[in-house]
Amino acid sequence: AMDGAPPPTSPTGLSAYVAVSQLLGLTLLATTGAWLGRYRGGVAWHSPLQFNAHPLCMVLGMVFLQGDALLVYRVFRHEAKRSTKALHALLHGLALVIALVGIIAVFESHRTKGIPDMYSLHSWCGMAAFLLYLLQWLLGCGFFLFPGASFSLRGRYKPQHIFFGIALFILSITSCLLGITEMLLFKISDSYSHFVPEGILANTLGVLLVAFGLLVGYVLTREEWKRPPLAEEMALSMDFKTLTEGESPGGGS
Amino acid sequence: AMDGAPPPTSPTGLSAYVAVSQLLGLTLLATTGAWLGRYRGGVAWHSPLQFNAHPLCMVLGMVFLQGDALLVYRVFRHEAKRSTKALHALLHGLALVIALVGIIAVFESHRTKGIPDMYSLHSWCGMAAFLLYLLQWLLGCGFFLFPGASFSLRGRYKPQHIFFGIALFILSITSCLLGITEMLLFKISDSYSHFVPEGILANTLGVLLVAFGLLVGYVLTREEWKRPPLAEEMALSMDFKTLTEGESPGGGS
Repeated sequence: AMDGAPPPTSPTGLSAYVAVSQLLGLTLLATTGAWLGRYRGGVAWHSPLQFNAHPLCMVLGMVFLQGDALLVYRVFRHEAKRSTKALHALLHGLALVIALVGIIAVFESHRTKGIPDMYSLHSWCGMAAFLLYLLQWLLGCGFFLFPGASFSLRGRYKPQHIFFGIALFILSITSCLLGITEMLLFKISDSYSHFVPEGILANTLGVLLVAFGLLVGYVLTREEWKRPPLAEEMALSMDFKTLTEGESPGGGS
Repeated sequence: AMDGAPPPTSPTGLSAYVAVSQLLGLTLLATTGAWLGRYRGGVAWHSPLQFNAHPLCMVLGMVFLQGDALLVYRVFRHEAKRSTKALHALLHGLALVIALVGIIAVFESHRTKGIPDMYSLHSWCGMAAFLLYLLQWLLGCGFFLFPGASFSLRGRYKPQHIFFGIALFILSITSCLLGITEMLLFKISDSYSHFVPEGILANTLGVLLVAFGLLVGYVLTREEWKRPPLAEEMALSMDFKTLTEGESPGGGS
């Protein structure tokens, strides 16, 4: 709505990287579906196939949706900050709900089959990733979405939020790779070393997960692609400086 | 040697974080050693225990030394850039040699026991991490250590070098976690789910590896802890600007 200003454009390359990341994300889901459908009997809730809901939900929630929630500030770089924030929180919230369904699936499946819970490195890393992700979401809502936190408190928490956000995304992907390795050694330990198609497919899923993490991480950390502050935010931050530093031209109180 | 200048100090907190990272690194080695020594018969080269050299070398080379090589620019923040660079390259080179020994150990052990190579997700991720790490080292030496590359070429490659350096460090840690999971499911698949001490110890090693990565990643990415350019570098960069942008007060050519 600024008169005379050229329509905002995205930096060269960003759109292409984001497009490839989305194709890769869909490929992750398709590959997980293909593995479960072709070699593991498919997915169903009240059945011995309940376990298979676990990998599907975790790849969808903890990887694809979590990754897309991180990309929101790069993709919607010229939208109002408030709506971008809301979308960021919403996507993470959706990811958390889907991950919770995936966690219920594995606990119920273990209970039915009499398998103990939480003994493996996969379960330790995965549960830590989920619980810290939930905590990070609650802290994010508390600091940035609801009013109350001061500008200076938000400013001090923001770098921590960004660092732990990326760290939890990486830990989520690592947990998926651990889960793939566990599942292959549980199900095809005799044939895995003979390069059977199921092993190759599941390994490929692992490589695609690493590629997705690498691509999202590259888009997030590239300096020129960071979201520029909008005119309205600059004004706000100026007001804030004036208020706190007593630089008002009319003199302090 | 600058007259009147106060002695350079490190930012608050940095030294403490670096100290904890080193304690954690030594704890990684001790925990790996304890696992192999207490439960896996120890380490020896020309013996059935040759395999055990693999985890020890990979944790030492691809995690501890690689991590320390990344920290060099934060720790020696007031040394001349050239010597810090040389130490960075040297530590990575040492890490590569030790990792190579670890890779030879697993291939020789497989050959002796008739086990196929390179079929697992662990081997795919680990080999990718090693080969790309070697490539990154060669590119780093070519661009930054030997003369020849122009300032502008160095400047354009540097962000890529940093991004892929951190990414390969993370992939190395992920590969270690996959290796731990594989080894536990090969060796104690029957008792792992009963929370036997070996399983808890190896899981704990996995958690410590994640903690080391988190700590090193935090130190590397914290904005206030980045290495400030020294006076000599500022002058160089100023000369460079003058030369290329023709801003010399004496007039351009």
